[in-house]
Amino acid sequence: MTQSALLSHIIEVAGLPANRLPAAARQMARLSLFDWITVSVAGADQPLAGMIRDFVGADGGTATATIVGSDIRLPARAAALANGTISHALDYDDTHFAYIGHPSVAIYPAALAAAEDVGASGTDLVDAFLVGAEAACRIGMVLGRDHYDAGFHQTATSGAFGATVAASRLYGLDAAALRAALGLVSSRASGLKSQFGTMGKPFNAGAAAANGIEAAGLARRGFTAADDAFDGPQSFLVSHHARPDGAALIKDLDSTQFVFADVRHKLHACCHGTHAMIEALLLLRAMPACHRDQIAQIRVHTAPRWLNVCDIKTPRTGLEIKFSYVFLAAMVMRGVNLAAYDSYDDRACDDPALQALAARVEIIGDDTIADSGTRVEIVCDDNTHLEQSFDLLAPLDPDQLGQRLLAKSAALLGDERAADLWATITNLDHLSAAEIARQLRR
Amino acid sequence: MTQSALLSHIIEVAGLPANRLPAAARQMARLSLFDWITVSVAGADQPLAGMIRDFVGADGGTATATIVGSDIRLPARAAALANGTISHALDYDDTHFAYIGHPSVAIYPAALAAAEDVGASGTDLVDAFLVGAEAACRIGMVLGRDHYDAGFHQTATSGAFGATVAASRLYGLDAAALRAALGLVSSRASGLKSQFGTMGKPFNAGAAAANGIEAAGLARRGFTAADDAFDGPQSFLVSHHARPDGAALIKDLDSTQFVFADVRHKLHACCHGTHAMIEALLLLRAMPACHRDQIAQIRVHTAPRWLNVCDIKTPRTGLEIKFSYVFLAAMVMRGVNLAAYDSYDDRACDDPALQALAARVEIIGDDTIADSGTRVEIVCDDNTHLEQSFDLLAPLDPDQLGQRLLAKSAALLGDERAADLWATITNLDHLSAAEIARQLRR
Repeated sequence: MTQSALLSHIIEVAGLPANRLPAAARQMARLSLFDWITVSVAGADQPLAGMIRDFVGADGGTATATIVGSDIRLPARAAALANGTISHALDYDDTHFAYIGHPSVAIYPAALAAAEDVGASGTDLVDAFLVGAEAACRIGMVLGRDHYDAGFHQTATSGAFGATVAASRLYGLDAAALRAALGLVSSRASGLKSQFGTMGKPFNAGAAAANGIEAAGLARRGFTAADDAFDGPQSFLVSHHARPDGAALIKDLDSTQFVFADVRHKLHACCHGTHAMIEALLLLRAMPACHRDQIAQIRVHTAPRWLNVCDIKTPRTGLEIKFSYVFLAAMVMRGVNLAAYDSYDDRACDDPALQALAARVEIIGDDTIADSGTRVEIVCDDNTHLEQSFDLLAPLDPDQLGQRLLAKSAALLGDERAADLWATITNLDHLSAAEIARQLRR
Repeated sequence: MTQSALLSHIIEVAGLPANRLPAAARQMARLSLFDWITVSVAGADQPLAGMIRDFVGADGGTATATIVGSDIRLPARAAALANGTISHALDYDDTHFAYIGHPSVAIYPAALAAAEDVGASGTDLVDAFLVGAEAACRIGMVLGRDHYDAGFHQTATSGAFGATVAASRLYGLDAAALRAALGLVSSRASGLKSQFGTMGKPFNAGAAAANGIEAAGLARRGFTAADDAFDGPQSFLVSHHARPDGAALIKDLDSTQFVFADVRHKLHACCHGTHAMIEALLLLRAMPACHRDQIAQIRVHTAPRWLNVCDIKTPRTGLEIKFSYVFLAAMVMRGVNLAAYDSYDDRACDDPALQALAARVEIIGDDTIADSGTRVEIVCDDNTHLEQSFDLLAPLDPDQLGQRLLAKSAALLGDERAADLWATITNLDHLSAAEIARQLRR
């Protein structure tokens, strides 16, 4: 694939008619919308949410798009900035491993704001998100781990391109205007991974979403940009450390073969590196042979890279619990709902029963286990031995996933609001984007 | 200098009290304000100006800051985006060679919008710009040509930091909040050189200015960002190809030793690489010994790198004239005002007298000549031989510079408007920023 063919490849994906969008990916996009609204509303009371609402609210402007956690409406670009930032506040949103980023928090805020702006339907909103997310996944693959390791936050950089694709589809840009928009956002896409642990991380997502509205809005008015800004000699790809063989990775992908379908949703409000263990333990815990009160030892085999990330042995705060294999293992076995944000309370660190069980958990780095996998053993006092492997990338049953996302939503927002949101998303083909956006309000 | 000392160095510059700002740099900042308003208003009818005004105008919002070439007022962030973009439309604004960029177009739009927002004085506006421009120059030096050659447009990247410093000073941020703002803008600073020749280039300047308002506005509300986002291990500097020895270049600079004072203003509406030649020819033309109508040959010695930039031998459009040594040389000797934008008309390419003279101009690459310099020889029919060297970096008399900027302004805006603008800038210590901003209006 030559360089300019890369942009044409993205533009082809962006322009797919609705009836050619793959059904499995569409279904995942709907579940991602449900999940994105859940984590957005759940994060709407975080301190940064108030700050960014105040920032865009002070500017005011046309009442175009909904702002999470408020009753005010603001211009689409302001809404994208605020909603993208707020929705990533809890770090509880979806992930795509090939993209190396979080699709929904960068792209849904742009898609929803643009959809409200033009009065689009719920169906068109999801489809615009989907082609944007697919574009972001493919560009994320082209950028690869080279880009990530150089210091860039793919959620924000690749996400800005995805947000541009989504917004451009809703604003009705033709291929030439979309090409200009992608050229323009090549100058705008940014975001550093060094922001992790600060408000700068969610801000990266909001900035990406706003970049999409901005690039689409300017290209829509005739703005031009360099044809080779994305992938020419001194382009975004070259200057931002894209992997040298990146284009080859996607050249054989059919435009309708959506990698986005592999998106994964966080079902527990803690570090993603612990999720495979939690899933395996939940399966073990449900086994009749598991004597939950007589556990002698739990052995967790995990990819060694996680040992530097989420192996805090003695957490002292709720935040540290999120990065503590041993404590999380104890919490699962004691029946704590790890989907609920409130479970990660500082006081849980002092619970003697959890401390005692955590002390019997051993974490073992194992090179043969994938980053997304785990193997867990439980030995009971009577020498019963149970074992369970789990891989987060294993295929998911969408109905089962939907039920778990609904349970997550209920844990975060309460049963009633979660059910109402579920009914809205289930019914989205009969609703306008504006009616869906009402779910974001206070 | 350790890495974190670099940020402290910038913060020290940003916080200098007015009475410690060096007088020469302050005077240049005032001349830059005059020149920036001149080129902004002169560019206000360009097609991109209408597009970006329409884009921000559609969003509306609080009537805070003036938009170039209109009677509407919009939020500061919108004004910074629009005014930065419009002011760089003609590519006729100031340049700083060490910064490798254009200070005014990225920083004045942010400073002016913030100054209008808080009701600051004209003096405070200029001083805020000045510390922002000095920060941008120093960061530009740290980034160096490595960054530029990697594909980045320093005007936009380094400019975003300068815009943040300027806006933060006007919004009254303390050192801790400024540090957060600089951390935040480390995630936002962007802009590619591959946009040159498209609307993407001026957009880069507008985006930088808007980034400054955004980072300052969020940090002002308590937003946090990573301490090491600017210069830590996976920071902006590292990921964006800063020169490895960059910090050493500024470590011995006293905080009040302002490199910004070396800013240079474009006095001719054509490629900067031709300006030294034009200045030398203007001096030769004024010599009594110069027989203007009997020129046998003009020989222009120039730095070889310019031969790839501005040595079009047979320009076919007004735009190509701007990159044509031989044609510009002919125009100078025929008394054409190269400060005037209208002089670069497509029809000038067909002028037989200009063509004939251009054919007698020889351009010679010479490694011993600096990028900012030239040596020009004129040989007349009677064998009179005249020679003149010129270096754009040679010290300037500020009064003489002021008169030339006034003449440039008159060539672009007409005598009356230029005189009115000059009176305003001369009197700026007695005016508010809002009163100065009125000069931007239609």
